[in-house]
Amino acid sequence: MKRSSTVLASLAALTTSHIIPRQESIDYNAAPPNLSTLANSTLFDTWRPKAHVLPAFGQIGDPCMHYTDPETGLFHVGYLHLGASGATTDNLVTYRDVNPDSEPFIRAGGINDPVAVFDGSVIERGVNGTPTLLYTSVSFLPIQWTIRYTQGSETQSLAFARDGGSNFTKAEFGPVIPSPPFAVNVTGFRDPFVFQNSQVDGLLGKRNGTWYTVISGGVHGKGPSLFLYAQYDDEDADLFQTWEYLGEWWHEAANSTWSQTGWAGRWGFNFEVANYFALDEQGANEEGEIFATIGAEWSYEPIVPQVSDNREMLWVAGKQELVDGQLKFEPTMSGRLDAGRSAYAAAGKVLYADSQASKASGAPDRFITYLWLTGDFYGTLTDEFPTAQQNWTGSLLLPRELSVGRLNVVDNQLSREKGSWRVDQEHDNGTVTLATLHQKIAREPYAAFQDNATNVITQTGGSMASVMKFDESPKSKHWMMTASITFPSRSDSLRAGFTILSGSQESTNIYYQFGNESLIIDRSNSSAAAQTTDGFLTEVETGKFRLFDVAGGYGNETKVETLDLTIVVDGGVVEVHANDRFAISTWVRSWYADSRDISFYVEGSDATFSNVTIYEGLVDAWPERN
Amino acid sequence: MKRSSTVLASLAALTTSHIIPRQESIDYNAAPPNLSTLANSTLFDTWRPKAHVLPAFGQIGDPCMHYTDPETGLFHVGYLHLGASGATTDNLVTYRDVNPDSEPFIRAGGINDPVAVFDGSVIERGVNGTPTLLYTSVSFLPIQWTIRYTQGSETQSLAFARDGGSNFTKAEFGPVIPSPPFAVNVTGFRDPFVFQNSQVDGLLGKRNGTWYTVISGGVHGKGPSLFLYAQYDDEDADLFQTWEYLGEWWHEAANSTWSQTGWAGRWGFNFEVANYFALDEQGANEEGEIFATIGAEWSYEPIVPQVSDNREMLWVAGKQELVDGQLKFEPTMSGRLDAGRSAYAAAGKVLYADSQASKASGAPDRFITYLWLTGDFYGTLTDEFPTAQQNWTGSLLLPRELSVGRLNVVDNQLSREKGSWRVDQEHDNGTVTLATLHQKIAREPYAAFQDNATNVITQTGGSMASVMKFDESPKSKHWMMTASITFPSRSDSLRAGFTILSGSQESTNIYYQFGNESLIIDRSNSSAAAQTTDGFLTEVETGKFRLFDVAGGYGNETKVETLDLTIVVDGGVVEVHANDRFAISTWVRSWYADSRDISFYVEGSDATFSNVTIYEGLVDAWPERN
Repeated sequence: MKRSSTVLASLAALTTSHIIPRQESIDYNAAPPNLSTLANSTLFDTWRPKAHVLPAFGQIGDPCMHYTDPETGLFHVGYLHLGASGATTDNLVTYRDVNPDSEPFIRAGGINDPVAVFDGSVIERGVNGTPTLLYTSVSFLPIQWTIRYTQGSETQSLAFARDGGSNFTKAEFGPVIPSPPFAVNVTGFRDPFVFQNSQVDGLLGKRNGTWYTVISGGVHGKGPSLFLYAQYDDEDADLFQTWEYLGEWWHEAANSTWSQTGWAGRWGFNFEVANYFALDEQGANEEGEIFATIGAEWSYEPIVPQVSDNREMLWVAGKQELVDGQLKFEPTMSGRLDAGRSAYAAAGKVLYADSQASKASGAPDRFITYLWLTGDFYGTLTDEFPTAQQNWTGSLLLPRELSVGRLNVVDNQLSREKGSWRVDQEHDNGTVTLATLHQKIAREPYAAFQDNATNVITQTGGSMASVMKFDESPKSKHWMMTASITFPSRSDSLRAGFTILSGSQESTNIYYQFGNESLIIDRSNSSAAAQTTDGFLTEVETGKFRLFDVAGGYGNETKVETLDLTIVVDGGVVEVHANDRFAISTWVRSWYADSRDISFYVEGSDATFSNVTIYEGLVDAWPERN
Repeated sequence: MKRSSTVLASLAALTTSHIIPRQESIDYNAAPPNLSTLANSTLFDTWRPKAHVLPAFGQIGDPCMHYTDPETGLFHVGYLHLGASGATTDNLVTYRDVNPDSEPFIRAGGINDPVAVFDGSVIERGVNGTPTLLYTSVSFLPIQWTIRYTQGSETQSLAFARDGGSNFTKAEFGPVIPSPPFAVNVTGFRDPFVFQNSQVDGLLGKRNGTWYTVISGGVHGKGPSLFLYAQYDDEDADLFQTWEYLGEWWHEAANSTWSQTGWAGRWGFNFEVANYFALDEQGANEEGEIFATIGAEWSYEPIVPQVSDNREMLWVAGKQELVDGQLKFEPTMSGRLDAGRSAYAAAGKVLYADSQASKASGAPDRFITYLWLTGDFYGTLTDEFPTAQQNWTGSLLLPRELSVGRLNVVDNQLSREKGSWRVDQEHDNGTVTLATLHQKIAREPYAAFQDNATNVITQTGGSMASVMKFDESPKSKHWMMTASITFPSRSDSLRAGFTILSGSQESTNIYYQFGNESLIIDRSNSSAAAQTTDGFLTEVETGKFRLFDVAGGYGNETKVETLDLTIVVDGGVVEVHANDRFAISTWVRSWYADSRDISFYVEGSDATFSNVTIYEGLVDAWPERN
């Protein structure tokens, strides 16, 4: 079905962006022109997500600086944007900008940060009980692991919330961590992530409730590291002006990897945006297992100065113990937090049960993380993509709640491989319990997308061996689909999944294939705009994901674990979540108005689909924006 | 004799200072008006020294950043002035500004020093063989030992000479010493003084020729300290970007003192402007005895925030040895480098025999130091003194060369007291050899004042018991007098010296008195301007100075050591040097044109004067200034 559709550029967005628009209509039923020839802001709405966190307009960078205001119980979600900006939420579904037009609550240009503000994190009850930001204050650029480190380029400074977090007043004193450790030739030294952990208190003999921070970076010629610091416990401890260096909490050899077979990415040469947290099966728990999320940077040989070919968004769990008096971390499992090549820089925070959102949903203490979905592939497409025409770049992904996941599977080569899981328990009956990281779309938006759906499409499934279009197509490009797929066998040639955002000219395949145990988003035919305009990435996105063998087949047979998919399409953002332990997200920028069809996609063998439901409409995350 | 004298304000100075003068004549034969009512710059020449180092106009602060340019052999004398400015000299007599109008070679306002540039020192062959400045880069004010230290307020940064030292390019990286030692609550952390010392190399097992720096300061609640750092000897050592902390090289208890009887000043609460050097009897020698000069700050109780009542300009000699692996300094003697209350902030440098000045004069390696003579008593008189009328404030004192002094004296209570000397050797004949610091006006200006005198007055001396006016008065207020005084006995009531800058209305007495073993400059009647105008200090200046008993009296008697005085009057600057081991300098601002007479001044007993010579005219230190 084709419909005629004309779209006017968002006047509200244009007003706030101070760009005078030409009134221009765009025909989404015709082939796109070269989009870079269009007037500014004319593409503002074309691929804009509605249920995701992003600023009112302009560029978004790393999420960071999240915190729950102890005064209000509101969760503040921050992100880099003209400095750092943010929004509050009482439900993880809808957000209120802390400043009109997403104006930042902190900007570069002070004595400590003349050049830039990089990521930071917040001590909720900091100086004078006020939310206190520890952030990377930048004095010199460029900074990258591929070049000589400029001494003093990255320092860690404080700022203090006022006006309910709509402003952070910078400290009227210098950086509280004014340099990397003595004589360490770092590749980076940024993104302090503050945390409290009773296990660390105990191991190090620190006062209960001591604040720590990891700082991400690495050492030239050696590899990536997390540097550990503690709030120095003197009479002025509550001023947070002195941080004691406790050594390299975690270090990996340069360009090494957890898994040669791709279950996790390379550790690379430099870590960024590390988070430290402890989880149990319910969520956040200081006494639980130690996890970190990290961004890892690396390049193919030969390494080109100021080019980082690859970034990996990894999670890791492991053990920490004292070695020669220093706390050292050793991974026991690691994987990708998101396999999408544009998904990076996850920033999380413990969201306590007494926050407004958790009280409303009844959730326990959780570790909530937001990833960044870069809109210009880490700045490399700035000049190619029609950035001015869209007038915004990038988004955060939906918030995810993390926990320890446990999974009873058959004890075989599949489960015994070193991967993004760990054999946690061995049982007599030929099964093992695996531990892994569980990550799910936070319960509140997940429920809200269901509860607020303007249209629920229930599609009959069953066993299929070829492509079959759904009976009903969503009316829009904003929906969530849940579905399960079971497989009679592990056929290398099998591909099973869905074709989405599909029409006469475009389509995108999302499928699992056993051949390389990967979940794939094939964007090669996803956008007619890519034919006319530079800067549209249409590479296949692929993420390694294993379906284990589980009990419960016929008789005493085992069967392949069911693939449970949640796919969220929100404008140009596509998130695919699988089995509470895998995610791959990317941009899919379909052009045509009719590219809304969905089909079952099966090739090479057959698969059985069930519980296929589409919740259309999602939620407007920004009800107060014009 | 009275002469009519009218003085026009210096037009040159006014032009460069961008102040439009009213043409105004001043009658120095009449009582002064309230000088603050005069037009700007009308007092420019009134008390301006001609043979001293000071900028073309405006305020001078601490001397610092001296160095010999290895390319030219010229000695660069630096001082704080709108940042830091300086001049070169090939003879320590005449100077050439490195920039017109004494424009600074470094100014505050960079990324490392947004607020101020404080003192620093220069590695002659630094980065790329270029003179490399290590200086205190200031980001926050106020800073004082009486208040809580603002973290990050003082860091140590690099800058690199170009254009023959008329500019120093600031490092495009952060401070190389970005903070005080970890968790040390400092009272100050500034004025890095770089040096090389073979003894330190040996004691610490460092590479020969390693550069070190002391940084002046102290610890709240503990007392003043010098913090020692070394150039870190890694592959990038020649970049001077990494300095290794070696501990508190010297620490004294808060508000303690070397001498309860006043031979040295209090160590106070905070050290400033420390210099480290090694001397022998000829001058500078890395293998010689270890000396330091320091500024010490203290107040009377109760200590008032942001008020330092007192500053002491001290020298100290002592031993350094390894204690628990750290190099520690212990004084063996200490005294005042200058007893004048306005004389402070000495900054010296090794001037090698192959410098232009030393080659010309045949001098060996020397340690040359310049003191600051504050013109507004450390900023406290800024609003009182007719600053705009004078249009310059403060001066440096004449350069002094330092060496180990040795003195054979009678072994008695006088020589055995703990003082600004040390018993170095004991002899069988009832004498001891004392060691002390010798400090003399540098040989080149001393000789130049003699050689270039426009008028030499030789005054007959002899034994005197009362005041007697010289036969001839200098025609100007720019001259140097040398004289010797011998004393028949130690009469407590005796005062013997000279009355200078004396006329019908004003006079200044300079005398030694045994009663309190002090050399005194009595300014109480020194300036008629003090009667009409605020901001003229006329307190008595006094400095403790001991004349020892020496052999050579009648028969086997001993006698009191002869007092050898050198008095330099240069406009308002008066320097009194005694016996190569004592100096007291101050401002004497006589008003009347006829205040040029000199008298022998004796009270209470008699004394014998000899070798009294006045060398009039001095030298214009700035022949190239307009």
